[in-house]
Amino acid sequence: MAFPRPKPTTERANPPFNVRKLSALMHGSEKALVLKEKFMAEIARHPAFKLSDIHDLSKDELRERTMEKFASMVYFVTTESLETFTLRMQLIGIADPSFWTRFGVSYGLFLGALRSGATPNQMSYWVDKGVLGLNGVIGCFAMTELAHGSNVAGLETTATFDPSSDEFVIHTPHLGATKWWIGGAASTATHAAVFAQLIVNGKKHGVKTFVTQLRDTKTFQLLPGITIGDIGKKMGRDGIDNGYIQFTYVRVPRAHMLMKHTQVSREGVVTEPPLAQLTYGALLGGRTSMVADSSNSAKKALTVAVRYAAVRRQFASGKNEIETQLLDYPIHQRRLMPLVAQAIAMGFTGLRLQAMYEDMTASLDRLEPSDPNLEDILDKLKETHATSAGLKAFCTWACLDTIDKCRQSCGGHGYSAYSNFPGMYADFAVQCTWEGDNTILSLQAGRALIGAWGAAIKKRRLAPGVAYLGLPNVLSLKSDSSLSLEDIQSAWSCVAANVVKKANQEYLVHLKSGKAKDVAMEQTSQSRFIAAKLHTYGYIFRMFREAVEEMPQGEERKLLEKVCRLYGLWQIEEQQGYFLKYGYFTAEQIDKVQEAVDALCLEIRGVAVPLIDSFALSDHIVNSPLGKWDGSVYESYFAQVQASNPPLKTHPYFDRLIRPLLERENSGSNDDPEREMGLDDELKEMKAEREGPQEVRREDSWHDSRNE
Amino acid sequence: MAFPRPKPTTERANPPFNVRKLSALMHGSEKALVLKEKFMAEIARHPAFKLSDIHDLSKDELRERTMEKFASMVYFVTTESLETFTLRMQLIGIADPSFWTRFGVSYGLFLGALRSGATPNQMSYWVDKGVLGLNGVIGCFAMTELAHGSNVAGLETTATFDPSSDEFVIHTPHLGATKWWIGGAASTATHAAVFAQLIVNGKKHGVKTFVTQLRDTKTFQLLPGITIGDIGKKMGRDGIDNGYIQFTYVRVPRAHMLMKHTQVSREGVVTEPPLAQLTYGALLGGRTSMVADSSNSAKKALTVAVRYAAVRRQFASGKNEIETQLLDYPIHQRRLMPLVAQAIAMGFTGLRLQAMYEDMTASLDRLEPSDPNLEDILDKLKETHATSAGLKAFCTWACLDTIDKCRQSCGGHGYSAYSNFPGMYADFAVQCTWEGDNTILSLQAGRALIGAWGAAIKKRRLAPGVAYLGLPNVLSLKSDSSLSLEDIQSAWSCVAANVVKKANQEYLVHLKSGKAKDVAMEQTSQSRFIAAKLHTYGYIFRMFREAVEEMPQGEERKLLEKVCRLYGLWQIEEQQGYFLKYGYFTAEQIDKVQEAVDALCLEIRGVAVPLIDSFALSDHIVNSPLGKWDGSVYESYFAQVQASNPPLKTHPYFDRLIRPLLERENSGSNDDPEREMGLDDELKEMKAEREGPQEVRREDSWHDSRNE
Repeated sequence: MAFPRPKPTTERANPPFNVRKLSALMHGSEKALVLKEKFMAEIARHPAFKLSDIHDLSKDELRERTMEKFASMVYFVTTESLETFTLRMQLIGIADPSFWTRFGVSYGLFLGALRSGATPNQMSYWVDKGVLGLNGVIGCFAMTELAHGSNVAGLETTATFDPSSDEFVIHTPHLGATKWWIGGAASTATHAAVFAQLIVNGKKHGVKTFVTQLRDTKTFQLLPGITIGDIGKKMGRDGIDNGYIQFTYVRVPRAHMLMKHTQVSREGVVTEPPLAQLTYGALLGGRTSMVADSSNSAKKALTVAVRYAAVRRQFASGKNEIETQLLDYPIHQRRLMPLVAQAIAMGFTGLRLQAMYEDMTASLDRLEPSDPNLEDILDKLKETHATSAGLKAFCTWACLDTIDKCRQSCGGHGYSAYSNFPGMYADFAVQCTWEGDNTILSLQAGRALIGAWGAAIKKRRLAPGVAYLGLPNVLSLKSDSSLSLEDIQSAWSCVAANVVKKANQEYLVHLKSGKAKDVAMEQTSQSRFIAAKLHTYGYIFRMFREAVEEMPQGEERKLLEKVCRLYGLWQIEEQQGYFLKYGYFTAEQIDKVQEAVDALCLEIRGVAVPLIDSFALSDHIVNSPLGKWDGSVYESYFAQVQASNPPLKTHPYFDRLIRPLLERENSGSNDDPEREMGLDDELKEMKAEREGPQEVRREDSWHDSRNE
Repeated sequence: MAFPRPKPTTERANPPFNVRKLSALMHGSEKALVLKEKFMAEIARHPAFKLSDIHDLSKDELRERTMEKFASMVYFVTTESLETFTLRMQLIGIADPSFWTRFGVSYGLFLGALRSGATPNQMSYWVDKGVLGLNGVIGCFAMTELAHGSNVAGLETTATFDPSSDEFVIHTPHLGATKWWIGGAASTATHAAVFAQLIVNGKKHGVKTFVTQLRDTKTFQLLPGITIGDIGKKMGRDGIDNGYIQFTYVRVPRAHMLMKHTQVSREGVVTEPPLAQLTYGALLGGRTSMVADSSNSAKKALTVAVRYAAVRRQFASGKNEIETQLLDYPIHQRRLMPLVAQAIAMGFTGLRLQAMYEDMTASLDRLEPSDPNLEDILDKLKETHATSAGLKAFCTWACLDTIDKCRQSCGGHGYSAYSNFPGMYADFAVQCTWEGDNTILSLQAGRALIGAWGAAIKKRRLAPGVAYLGLPNVLSLKSDSSLSLEDIQSAWSCVAANVVKKANQEYLVHLKSGKAKDVAMEQTSQSRFIAAKLHTYGYIFRMFREAVEEMPQGEERKLLEKVCRLYGLWQIEEQQGYFLKYGYFTAEQIDKVQEAVDALCLEIRGVAVPLIDSFALSDHIVNSPLGKWDGSVYESYFAQVQASNPPLKTHPYFDRLIRPLLERENSGSNDDPEREMGLDDELKEMKAEREGPQEVRREDSWHDSRNE
């Protein structure tokens, strides 16, 4: 008996655009796309990057597998340009977030701490020790404590200067100050960048960084005074060995404090840095990569969900023999197409943010204190910093939400580990928490917006990201009913300006009532949050629109204009309350928005499969039989289930647990089938009983669970 | 050095209500609360119900542990009243969803299939075989197929009658028809209730149920023609052994087809049932329990999040030495208090739904075809059935969302497996999919609402759940600005009626344009979805309000009135677009709603800890050190991490993977500390360089990651 299914070839026939051209646009350049394809090919063949069996590995097996990937990457990190290596790591971050993190704590965080905190002499000392090639030093980043996360200034580990020996004594004073979540500490690192309160002559000087050796590099034994434990199972990313560290009067040479900024002399004189520590830039880098990662991870989930929906059929419509493809249901288009648009919007935002970040880093590197543009550059930096806080928050939330919606859109099979949605969700979830809890980051963005509104009122110069706040009559713009990209842009400007203004006013009311600034800000939290949300969605739309409008004319641009419209209109629909509240749209216009979203979902569904192809994610990276490029969903799924669960020779607990249940007293015998059971006589009786009056018609109860 | 933290005793001092009285109200009765406490005490001491180590068990260990629980439950199921046992299972469902499912497929689904489908003679045959005590028969429920989930009528497994031997031949014709997700199939069940297309004399008669033996009950070997495999790792609930089954021409006696409704005679005559198969009731039972489970699981997550937020401190406010409790931040109140209100609202909805369900089941049992109230009862049943579809969908979504928001509210520690949030999320996630995908169920609810609006227009009698659609001027109600419970109720009635009307109108427009009914319904999907959403939220509010208004006067009722207001107003805020669109609230009134929600969050925060205590979940059930009743969060967390991750005697892969990295060429020696590195000379040089003009002031870069 045949098992008829649609072929994805039909979906890929004659797309009205060039998939490769579109893909290059989404990747920023043809070169970036080619590099990505090269990286994908390399890891697909590398045994350490085998992905199909990853769902069934134990935590310990995952940890070991993850460590196997180090060596090959060390080769690339020491030979490739930073730009190329960054792209490589971005790709690997999609394939294996655990490894990305484990490698990242050493290369990103530990080395980053040295780069930003070490003097040139200190840096060359650690380079000689082997920090660049991991040959001699494998570092970890010991910042977070059990009772202190976001509040770095409140960390309680102490580093007390002992002038008698010219050393610092690193100490964990109580349980709450235990270093916690330290990636690489449990079983990888030899050294740690320890964040601790500097104490000299009984006086606290704030949190500084101290490179502290944890283990003997020959024997890997813990050094005296170091207590390390594994913090064990996590929601995801179990390939990374997070640990806890307690220091009990551990002595490090004075020179192991990173002294580019604050210095402690042999005599115990503390010199604070006169220049701002421009760490904004470093934070921006992390956030930029998280916006890109949100887009990429969402695209990975959507690749599975869209391809599955093109193959899966459910319920025949009318008299059709063949059931309808999920993708052809309007509600399924509604479930997936806006998320596709959002993932693409985040992708272009990430690309532009990356370019802005590189530009800014270059400006900062050139910056002299006497530069006449200093204020401009710093303002722009601060504004981008605040905007990127909101972007980090709302993009990571959007991605997490996308992964789970994609899972649900695949029905029960999305709940199988082999669909890869469970792993994607579990791995991604931490992005909403680390590098700043999303809610807290949103409030920071909201705080900056309150300030920007104040500047707008005073007609002061506004940084590009908030320039719309200074538009004439921005608060009272109205829709021209075109729902064009311009109209959508005005909608976001108007509404974001209104909610920013509202937050500003609330803050001022609290201030006037005599509250301290901090308290007034806290009391304005909800409105700040809303301001950040709408500003950020509007910002993403603007980034996407600008990217599209810079593209050459062509079918690819035409398509992306539609995708951009869908993103903007769908997000308006989601947040419609604000557009009605501030009168940008009337109730009737909001109905038109809903109709436009429906129509765009249908239109983009028509090219959904080739559009997803342009995300350029290999079957190996996607690692889900449900998302197989060639549509062999069921065969691949079945093969993976069989390969991952070979039959057991003997039942592990039949004799101990099941047999005693089955053989308890009163057990019937299955050797006596009693096949007839007097059934036919009974059926005749039942029939006779039924011959009374009938008022209820038979109804197929299962119809009830039909889609429609 | 001390580690100062608040004690939860402060939070529990003098609550303005009696916690136990409140708790009894939430549990429906003092008796139900006492029983729950008894069940909790029993499983806390039962070794099979050990929960603290569950995060580190492998899938195979979990499976075996889960099976250990069967025996004790078999004792209770055969000795306790259905009411008591149902409460017991509800409690166990909160503690261990895996076990609940594994037990449920046998007792709920397999036995339920027999109860609803077997003739009395067939039932007594299977009872003799041991279905009630699991002694002789352990059943599973073989409905879903690899390529067929929701569409039961489309299942492709065949059961072909062979008159020559008076048997059915059960067969899996192709891969897509493989029975899939069958709980208990992989390693527990001896028999299955197999859903298959009945074929007699070459004619299909639709899907019927056939009890088919899978394994020999003595040896547990698979019977001839039966192929079974384990479907392996899932997102959660790994204690249940889901499997796949393929039948290759398996013969079962004719009497093994369940024949209460459709019968096949010895001669191959098929008799279809004249009476409706009233399976609505059975579906309602499942949904009712899922509403209760949504409330209970949300309460479990909130118990952790609220208690943690009372202990955790972050950032000192102003000049305070001690950092602020998370619960005292307005934004943290905003994050948790509405979810608390929602969990309580779902709890009361579940209780009332349960009562309605029992009432209805009793009515149906008494029902005769000649009953003059037949139409009434069936209408009510259908309406409740549709409403419960929406409740299942929006309550399970609300709970899943609550679990993840609670996780995020605990920051990084929520990502630890030991927080129990990861497990709760993974276990709960399937509730949004099984027993009907939530989106599809919402559309069913929306379809029923379209029908109800038609009835309302024709002034026909409306079932209680949709009676508001017939209120005079329901479409044009306006707020009286009181934001009282009455005002909130009117708001929901008005807005739900408007969106239901809109869906109805859209449907009619599609019909008038010549589309078939099914197609017209599909085209109306988005509006149907919105109608179901707003109807359901309004319904939950009404259930909560009615429950509160039936309570005796007192402090407990006063508190619950506030909680009910918070739920209603917060949900209005969430859906504010519709309230503005249909003019129930003005923009100014919506601002007042936001203020009222802020104020209620603050007020309920004041009693949050005792309120959470009234959820009556033991530390054992909650199974999260972050939610410890006595506030010993950090000590318990540290102890659990240590107990779950004992130090290894030898590093599992140092020699193989880490040593070769560390000892690669160019490795520096760590025997030569070179402690001074010429640092002090360098620092002097740096100091000299800095003596130029300074325009930028030092800024503590870490302030940036502060809350405010």
